[in-house]
Amino acid sequence: MARPAPLSGFPEWLPGDRIVEQQVLDRLRRTFESWGFASIQTRAVEPLEEMLRKGEIDKEVYVLRRLHAAPDEDDAGRGLGLHFDLTVPFARYVLENSGKLTFPFKRYQIQPVWRGERPQEGRYREFWQADVDVVGVGELPFHHDVEVAQVMAEALGGLPLPPITLQLNNRKLIQGFYTGLGAPDVPAVMRAIDKIDKLRPDAVRELLVTDAALTPAQADLCLRLAAIQAQDAGFAEQVAALGVSDPLLDQGLHELVQVIDGVVALRAPGFSAVADLRIARGLDYYTGTVYETRMAGYEHLGSICSGGRYDSLASDGATTYPGVGISFGVTRTLGPLFSRGALRASRSVPTCVLVALVNEDQRPAAGLVAAALRRRGICAEVAPAADKFGKQIRYADRRGIPFVWFPGSGEGQDEVKDIRSGDQVAADPSSWLPASEDLVPQVLGES
Amino acid sequence: MARPAPLSGFPEWLPGDRIVEQQVLDRLRRTFESWGFASIQTRAVEPLEEMLRKGEIDKEVYVLRRLHAAPDEDDAGRGLGLHFDLTVPFARYVLENSGKLTFPFKRYQIQPVWRGERPQEGRYREFWQADVDVVGVGELPFHHDVEVAQVMAEALGGLPLPPITLQLNNRKLIQGFYTGLGAPDVPAVMRAIDKIDKLRPDAVRELLVTDAALTPAQADLCLRLAAIQAQDAGFAEQVAALGVSDPLLDQGLHELVQVIDGVVALRAPGFSAVADLRIARGLDYYTGTVYETRMAGYEHLGSICSGGRYDSLASDGATTYPGVGISFGVTRTLGPLFSRGALRASRSVPTCVLVALVNEDQRPAAGLVAAALRRRGICAEVAPAADKFGKQIRYADRRGIPFVWFPGSGEGQDEVKDIRSGDQVAADPSSWLPASEDLVPQVLGES
Repeated sequence: MARPAPLSGFPEWLPGDRIVEQQVLDRLRRTFESWGFASIQTRAVEPLEEMLRKGEIDKEVYVLRRLHAAPDEDDAGRGLGLHFDLTVPFARYVLENSGKLTFPFKRYQIQPVWRGERPQEGRYREFWQADVDVVGVGELPFHHDVEVAQVMAEALGGLPLPPITLQLNNRKLIQGFYTGLGAPDVPAVMRAIDKIDKLRPDAVRELLVTDAALTPAQADLCLRLAAIQAQDAGFAEQVAALGVSDPLLDQGLHELVQVIDGVVALRAPGFSAVADLRIARGLDYYTGTVYETRMAGYEHLGSICSGGRYDSLASDGATTYPGVGISFGVTRTLGPLFSRGALRASRSVPTCVLVALVNEDQRPAAGLVAAALRRRGICAEVAPAADKFGKQIRYADRRGIPFVWFPGSGEGQDEVKDIRSGDQVAADPSSWLPASEDLVPQVLGES
Repeated sequence: MARPAPLSGFPEWLPGDRIVEQQVLDRLRRTFESWGFASIQTRAVEPLEEMLRKGEIDKEVYVLRRLHAAPDEDDAGRGLGLHFDLTVPFARYVLENSGKLTFPFKRYQIQPVWRGERPQEGRYREFWQADVDVVGVGELPFHHDVEVAQVMAEALGGLPLPPITLQLNNRKLIQGFYTGLGAPDVPAVMRAIDKIDKLRPDAVRELLVTDAALTPAQADLCLRLAAIQAQDAGFAEQVAALGVSDPLLDQGLHELVQVIDGVVALRAPGFSAVADLRIARGLDYYTGTVYETRMAGYEHLGSICSGGRYDSLASDGATTYPGVGISFGVTRTLGPLFSRGALRASRSVPTCVLVALVNEDQRPAAGLVAAALRRRGICAEVAPAADKFGKQIRYADRRGIPFVWFPGSGEGQDEVKDIRSGDQVAADPSSWLPASEDLVPQVLGES
């Protein structure tokens, strides 16, 4: 077999980057769990017919068949595809297990998803997402909209990423505003405003007048609303100054103030929140709070963490399950950071200590030293060969292993060398401890 | 959407079982890393042509296509399938990245694999495996055969599973034995002996004579070799007593003694090792040590953890990469234990403390209590609604949350109730600690 070439859109990491990814995932998991979110994992496949209900994405699904499937085989009939997000599988899981779950059900889910999109930076065919959602039966209190924003802010805020901004809006606010100013076709207004990042303001104003049948004055108000941004609840006054009133608008304003206040109160490091009344999220199942997220210096990636409130996450006809959730694009975010060398691990292996070997006969004794270190939480391995010590030290150095241990012979005491400084000291495997920053690989950012 | 039905062969766990699975995976990861094994993950897909080199499995591969792929699309041409194990992807990863890896390369990999097999107990279409392998360039010292057995013994030995037995053999030992006794067709002998679990001894003896062209006396010696089992190095004397000698046999005996001694020396709880000279492993790429594993009471599942030494894990023509590895069937093992209720979590959520609410206005204050607990590593959530306390306690009880926290009003002090005992005591969120067994969900076995 010749050297295989990478497959475009299916990224894989070298061991050092994988250590970074694992530590990011650990942080997400630890934070989600600390807020009481339970982990679930769903199978990789879903029936095609369920996935294709969301028409806009149908081009991108990977369909499965068994290589030697019989024509009448069940699977072929059911038509299975790889899931393209974690929301459709979660909705199906909730319906399938509704009798066995307790509601409101708070879950997180960290898994790969697959989309047959054309690969480009930050857009892959296989990529990991980390989703948190809360789902209720029949109704779900608004305060969970604040909670999912807070938990994600706390999770992402602690990571060595470039500064992150959570952009918040509320569909009730904008829909109420359009209704309040007398728009005859509210969905048409939203479709036009959704183009605000792609078209010049004049072109959007034109669309508002021609497609959404607004007067020029109404169109202008819509553009002024979309231009409002604020890092605190002050946006509410700016909206009030536009002179439009509507009960749904008031409710949306009230909700948005609570979400932004809740996130600001957390003071998560490197994480800020902004009310950005331009954000609409194209997906039409959002009905209240909407979330998007930008990473400084990586704005071209688009939103790296998105979601919102949906009044009907799932429904079995008799019962409706409303939900609110937010999804962080793990691979979308880490991939470009890895490519640019903006995130790396301090070493490419978990090993903290390499136990050196004088000769092969000493391997069992060296193994006992390694075992004693491991029992105390220190990752340790024995040198693969009883080479000259210089070669054993180079083995450690190439992997970034900070310490080499020299078992004492006869009455001699063990010694441990910090191969970065060259310092070598007497040590006992039952009591020696490395500095805490050397115990496990550290994730290093650009700064 | 009506309530969806589960998909046979694609198991999913409820949150409680998922907690058990996570803790098992955590234990595996922690152990693998403590021995210096680095994590990698490979993409879910591999080119079909690579996977189909292993002809025996080609019926079971899931093939992918994009739903709306153009007839001339690249992907269609490359023919992608879901990987059916983690060994083929690992071999490809090693070749693809050989210039960027350091050898010997010790890696672990915990991922799902897919096979279109007919589902039955312990046999799934999507299931997780946990693999450890060591791979070298050109050559790989034998002591890694001992190491991978030890690391897996330590990982599995600490889990609350039924007693586990690692069955060990060595292909050099059996091949050398057959050669030494004068077998004209050694592979034919191995094929016959491999049927020893399916056929009666007389039928195997018959095969040895007819298919492998052995004399009845030679056939008898082969059966006597296959009957040897020992929990220590004593098997070597039993083999010697059969009076066959061969250099390869001697080497195999020497290796097998070292592996079994190495595992026995670990004294991993609930884990034993046995030399079982019947074990051959059908896969013809094994060239030395072979591993299989049985779990007491679940012998019908077959081997739950298997592997061995292969002289050529991968090759790019110029360079050969020998390896030794072992693969634990996570889903194969846990699925049947879950079905029988033999393993469960002490609660279905990570939450240790539910902070009660007097009224909705107190939610921010209750949130501060929860945040103070979280900062100290205690998973805490605020009650979803300011219902009567009895209802809030039932919310906790249904999820197995052991503690409910009552924030003090005005000058009153906070109190925390253990809802199992009913004990309620004054407490401060900046200092209170639960018993360690209540801090995180515990995994409970049958015993």
